Amino acid sequence: MGKKVEVRNLKGFRDFGPKEQMARQAMFMKIQEVFERFGFLPLSTPVLEYKEILMNKYGDDEKLVYSFKDMGDRDVAMRYDLTVPMARYVAQNRGQLVFPFKRYQIAPAWRADNTQRGRLREFYQCDVDTVGTTSLFADAEAIACIYEAYKTLGVTNVVFRINDRRLFNCFLELIEKDEEKLKEVVRSLDKVDKVGVDGVVHELQGKGFDESVWSMARKYLGIGKGAEGLDQVLDVLGGGVEDGYNSLRTIFELLRNLKVPDDVLLFDPTIARGQDYYTGTIFECFIKDEYGFGSIGSGGRYDGLVDQFTDDGLPAVGASIGIDRLFEWLEEKGVLGKDLGIDVLVLNFSEEFWLDYINLVTSLREQGLSTELYYEAVKLDKQFKYAESKGAKFAIIFGEEEKSRNVVKVKTLKTREQEEVGMENLAEYIKAHK
Amino acid sequence: MGKKVEVRNLKGFRDFGPKEQMARQAMFMKIQEVFERFGFLPLSTPVLEYKEILMNKYGDDEKLVYSFKDMGDRDVAMRYDLTVPMARYVAQNRGQLVFPFKRYQIAPAWRADNTQRGRLREFYQCDVDTVGTTSLFADAEAIACIYEAYKTLGVTNVVFRINDRRLFNCFLELIEKDEEKLKEVVRSLDKVDKVGVDGVVHELQGKGFDESVWSMARKYLGIGKGAEGLDQVLDVLGGGVEDGYNSLRTIFELLRNLKVPDDVLLFDPTIARGQDYYTGTIFECFIKDEYGFGSIGSGGRYDGLVDQFTDDGLPAVGASIGIDRLFEWLEEKGVLGKDLGIDVLVLNFSEEFWLDYINLVTSLREQGLSTELYYEAVKLDKQFKYAESKGAKFAIIFGEEEKSRNVVKVKTLKTREQEEVGMENLAEYIKAHK
Repeated sequence: MGKKVEVRNLKGFRDFGPKEQMARQAMFMKIQEVFERFGFLPLSTPVLEYKEILMNKYGDDEKLVYSFKDMGDRDVAMRYDLTVPMARYVAQNRGQLVFPFKRYQIAPAWRADNTQRGRLREFYQCDVDTVGTTSLFADAEAIACIYEAYKTLGVTNVVFRINDRRLFNCFLELIEKDEEKLKEVVRSLDKVDKVGVDGVVHELQGKGFDESVWSMARKYLGIGKGAEGLDQVLDVLGGGVEDGYNSLRTIFELLRNLKVPDDVLLFDPTIARGQDYYTGTIFECFIKDEYGFGSIGSGGRYDGLVDQFTDDGLPAVGASIGIDRLFEWLEEKGVLGKDLGIDVLVLNFSEEFWLDYINLVTSLREQGLSTELYYEAVKLDKQFKYAESKGAKFAIIFGEEEKSRNVVKVKTLKTREQEEVGMENLAEYIKAHK
Repeated sequence: MGKKVEVRNLKGFRDFGPKEQMARQAMFMKIQEVFERFGFLPLSTPVLEYKEILMNKYGDDEKLVYSFKDMGDRDVAMRYDLTVPMARYVAQNRGQLVFPFKRYQIAPAWRADNTQRGRLREFYQCDVDTVGTTSLFADAEAIACIYEAYKTLGVTNVVFRINDRRLFNCFLELIEKDEEKLKEVVRSLDKVDKVGVDGVVHELQGKGFDESVWSMARKYLGIGKGAEGLDQVLDVLGGGVEDGYNSLRTIFELLRNLKVPDDVLLFDPTIARGQDYYTGTIFECFIKDEYGFGSIGSGGRYDGLVDQFTDDGLPAVGASIGIDRLFEWLEEKGVLGKDLGIDVLVLNFSEEFWLDYINLVTSLREQGLSTELYYEAVKLDKQFKYAESKGAKFAIIFGEEEKSRNVVKVKTLKTREQEEVGMENLAEYIKAHK
């Protein structure tokens, strides 16, 4: 052979080895169970789409879409999220679907973004979306559903910062008419979590904006968080925001009745959501007191998106769990996948017991126990190291002496305790002790 | 809005709507459970790899790899199978891994192939591989494991056509020395399932090959299938194939002890496996008496592949289930996902019962039942149509009269039977009857 190819991952792409992947799959399963409990059913769309399907959906971030020409000279793109392909699917199949259409999808998406902590170029999304109803119960359910998912994963110290795009848009209209200048303003506003209200005002002053701009920013960003803040909104923004205001009041009431605790819900007028397509409710979810860690979920109402593909008038609302970041957080806390691994490793003492070993392995597998035979009769410390690497719960010792008495020794690997068990009781013993 | 974008899938790419996707996920879960029972643990590798990782692995099919330049001007490629990325992972992490390394992966791969029945450009693979042992027990286990997976899916009329690459290679060496001519010979040999031995011989004669070529082809292809055929191999190929011959004998014996029934195992000297990297055991699996439907699984030993990335000498063996084709076959038989869907739809009679409905839905969900409320109080036939589209098992009727007596009516949708149930017994009733 010639020179070896260098083995490496692309920047922003990573492998998940068995221990991590077992933990991730367990997470996905729990989330999936919650999504289905809320009546969302799975949809699978392809990784590649015609590029034009994804264009004009993501604003400035459109440049992050992975796209290329395929062998048939088609312009194709890797999905950037799960929402736009779902909207394409719904528009394409609107004649066959019964609405409202509630679907979930747990799958990767790709963005050629700068890589940073918890943000990879290949990342998983866990989305629920409801298409075809303007009922605010659907908005509330999207939030309640992902709250329930967090809870199932053991993450209860979360906070949903909830706003309505119509409030934020009204504020933007009041603050600055010029589109280019407005972008500059928004860039400053986006920093409020980091630098606070005064910091934003200071930056706007530094950029040379008029008092009308920075004093409006101070007033709006100064609106209280929570229920009392919601009441201040009408004062600060004046008329024309009643729709957004009333909608938010209803959603908070519905969420209370859906048993989402008050203290995880926060009205927050500073939440804007990047994507252009949001039209009503918007929210971002964070670990409480850890805003700096970044959002672990988000969503909102986007009544115009599906209509970019069809004239049928299909309103929609959805939510997405930032599963990679959540995984990272749970991993740091060390709460993930402690007990994951195989059940049994049958130790290999000698080639002469081949048939016995195969019978042992096969009968344990027939009882639903994940079981392996160590392939070679090598030194035991090597075999125990292997058992540990697989997260095995038990090792089975079977040699000359055990064979003569039709028993095995079962070693519980966590406690290092060892017990003799009759061959006929083995599966039962293991099931009882695992 | 301007002109709408045409909503369509790329050729060779498809969506799986909720009913299909529920059935597919149920399949994946069953397969995953079997893989883990055999001691394989999950690995996840990225969709994109450096292109050079995938090059020189797939022979002529290399042209089918989706590749492009990313924004950082890197040559990248979408994975063509799950085996090569796994080999890359193992080579890259060989210092940390404990061998043998047994992993499974269930994930899509991409090939810019001609589309035909059951063969899409985006397709799923379900792979198990064992790296780091030459033990033939690993070969036998790979076959036993995917046999068990088929069985779990209710597909028992399968046949594993098993060969050893060393036998086939010896045959090729005997038949023709010139590489270009040999490719022509192999193209004819590949048609044996369709045209039979005489057809192949006839074609070789038509192409102008010497008698030495086509008579050898007749002799080799004429070797009996099954155990008696294996005994003829030494006669036909002469010396130098004892390794392959002995290896196959051992594997058949191991498979018998692993309780794979004799009648699903067939020695078949015509099996060659396309990929260049196979070195020993090779096999393809078919539905019995439906070879024309195509392979539903395959695999083999490839002791050289990982060594293309590292000098560590890591032998390997694996198997892959052709899940898309299998799904298609099960779908045609109508055996898939009959009972999949949500448990309960709460019918919506009036806005005035909002709070009651929310309480109902929330308490049923707390009991683990997948439950929906129909969002709007529209005509009942529309709501029942929705229930049907979601595969709902029960509809709950709750209006003025029921409220006054603290009961609900539960309609079992399959039988159309209706029963009155006290509110406090509702979850219990549904669990007992679903």
